[in-house]
Amino acid sequence: MILVVTANPALDVTYTVPALIPGAMSRVSSVHRRAGGKGINVARVLHALGAPTLALAPCGGADGRLVGADLAAAGLPHELSTIAGPTRRTVTILSAADGTVTLVNEPGPVVSACEWDAVVSAVRRRVSRSSVLVCAGSLPPGVPADGYAELIDLARRAGVPAVLDTSGAALLAGIAAGPALVKPNAEELRAVTGTADPLTGALAMRALGARTVFVSLGAEGMLAVTDGAAWRAGVPRRLRGNTTGAGDAAVAGAALELAARSPWPEVLRSAVSVSSASVLGAYAGDVDLDHHRREHGAVIVEEIHAARVDV
Amino acid sequence: MILVVTANPALDVTYTVPALIPGAMSRVSSVHRRAGGKGINVARVLHALGAPTLALAPCGGADGRLVGADLAAAGLPHELSTIAGPTRRTVTILSAADGTVTLVNEPGPVVSACEWDAVVSAVRRRVSRSSVLVCAGSLPPGVPADGYAELIDLARRAGVPAVLDTSGAALLAGIAAGPALVKPNAEELRAVTGTADPLTGALAMRALGARTVFVSLGAEGMLAVTDGAAWRAGVPRRLRGNTTGAGDAAVAGAALELAARSPWPEVLRSAVSVSSASVLGAYAGDVDLDHHRREHGAVIVEEIHAARVDV
Repeated sequence: MILVVTANPALDVTYTVPALIPGAMSRVSSVHRRAGGKGINVARVLHALGAPTLALAPCGGADGRLVGADLAAAGLPHELSTIAGPTRRTVTILSAADGTVTLVNEPGPVVSACEWDAVVSAVRRRVSRSSVLVCAGSLPPGVPADGYAELIDLARRAGVPAVLDTSGAALLAGIAAGPALVKPNAEELRAVTGTADPLTGALAMRALGARTVFVSLGAEGMLAVTDGAAWRAGVPRRLRGNTTGAGDAAVAGAALELAARSPWPEVLRSAVSVSSASVLGAYAGDVDLDHHRREHGAVIVEEIHAARVDV
Repeated sequence: MILVVTANPALDVTYTVPALIPGAMSRVSSVHRRAGGKGINVARVLHALGAPTLALAPCGGADGRLVGADLAAAGLPHELSTIAGPTRRTVTILSAADGTVTLVNEPGPVVSACEWDAVVSAVRRRVSRSSVLVCAGSLPPGVPADGYAELIDLARRAGVPAVLDTSGAALLAGIAAGPALVKPNAEELRAVTGTADPLTGALAMRALGARTVFVSLGAEGMLAVTDGAAWRAGVPRRLRGNTTGAGDAAVAGAALELAARSPWPEVLRSAVSVSSASVLGAYAGDVDLDHHRREHGAVIVEEIHAARVDV
């Protein structure tokens, strides 16, 4: 089973309006609500791919209950620990006139030390019987920067590979705990390592403790750097669609292969294939499974032969 | 007691963001949630003014429960009938950079004939012991255009003055039931009567069944037309502030005087005074009571001596 922790889940609400005009009133023509946050999206994709998954998250308030109800309706196994603060809501406003997507994100609730302990305990109870641990998304206020680091440490001691997908201080502290895989995008990598070059940045992340680094480069595919080897991977044809959640789908694709103990080029191939298939999904967490199955073999994975990789 | 019916209540959520930029993501710096909808705002102002009030509304879903919880927290007497559909949410996005206010309003839930009957029954049970009935805001999908007309008819038979503040077909149908007072703004008046002239429009509304018409003209104050008489009223100095809910505050001010059976110039004076004091409130439904008490006597009420009034 793949354990997926979302420290700061959200109720994702998408409003379609005729046109979003600052200073004016828009009537919403359709409303879509679903459980969200990076880890929830990862778990949803894993569930769609048929992988046994358990989503762990602290949830509270009315929107927290809607998150639980949506996960239950989707048949996605989950264990939510109750917190006093209200789970945040992200509002996506889709302007039908021009397709512009505008996001307004509520701040996360404060999660107390005691409430975070409940999440840590859930991971401790289950990690030794898990194939992979995924920690994804931001840490909410109240959880220290090494919140994910503590979970990664539990996984490492149990001999379970951990995947980390977060940013800023949580990413920096998490890397130090030695996760098997870190998946920053170019901006997250630059913010933490100070370099805009993906290869240099990935090497810097390895020096900080990450064992393998996948840098997602949007339409340019992904760069993977591990012990003494590096690869670039991409799809033969660019796809147009919804790129929100493409990074989460990449993490799901990678976690699936890590659970199967596949070699790194295959882990990378699935990350790119599932991410690409997610662009055809309507909302974050959706994937076009047929596309993934059909195009998985067509993903181009090329080893990079560079002296610089051998650090 | 003043009975206030809100057919289509809402959970009003105000997000303050640094700047709202279409196509970009904004982090919300503060979130404010409260029960809303025109009638709820009217009831809130009446409650602040110390008038015994009961808010009646059909509510459902998670946001409907939040509406009830907020009314309870505010100590505002209410009787909510449960509906299957989820109460709508209005999202106000306040851009801190330039003060721009952008609204995104969810559609109301469908209210079935049976669910609307519960509201009608609540009014029937209570109207004879009420001083005034206020019907405010839009009718939700499922409620026929004469939804408010039926309530106004119950009030008329009980000898209780009814105040109507709505728009479009609900306004047109409601007027036909002979409410004591109708309070359109200039745009609502134009939409129903076809004329942009407030006096001509108010006379047309009287011809359609309204006994007295108060036309709110924003910073220009109000125009009142009743049987054989008309007045203009305004404040000596313009106020800057939040005009959302100013019309609802005017209805509250008028209902308060109607409950006291005050003469029309005094009803008009309070409508203008309370409306003006609401502009200084942070959110719709707030009034600056000190301002109202201090400036009430300074409201200028002038009778209009026009042959045209005598229709």
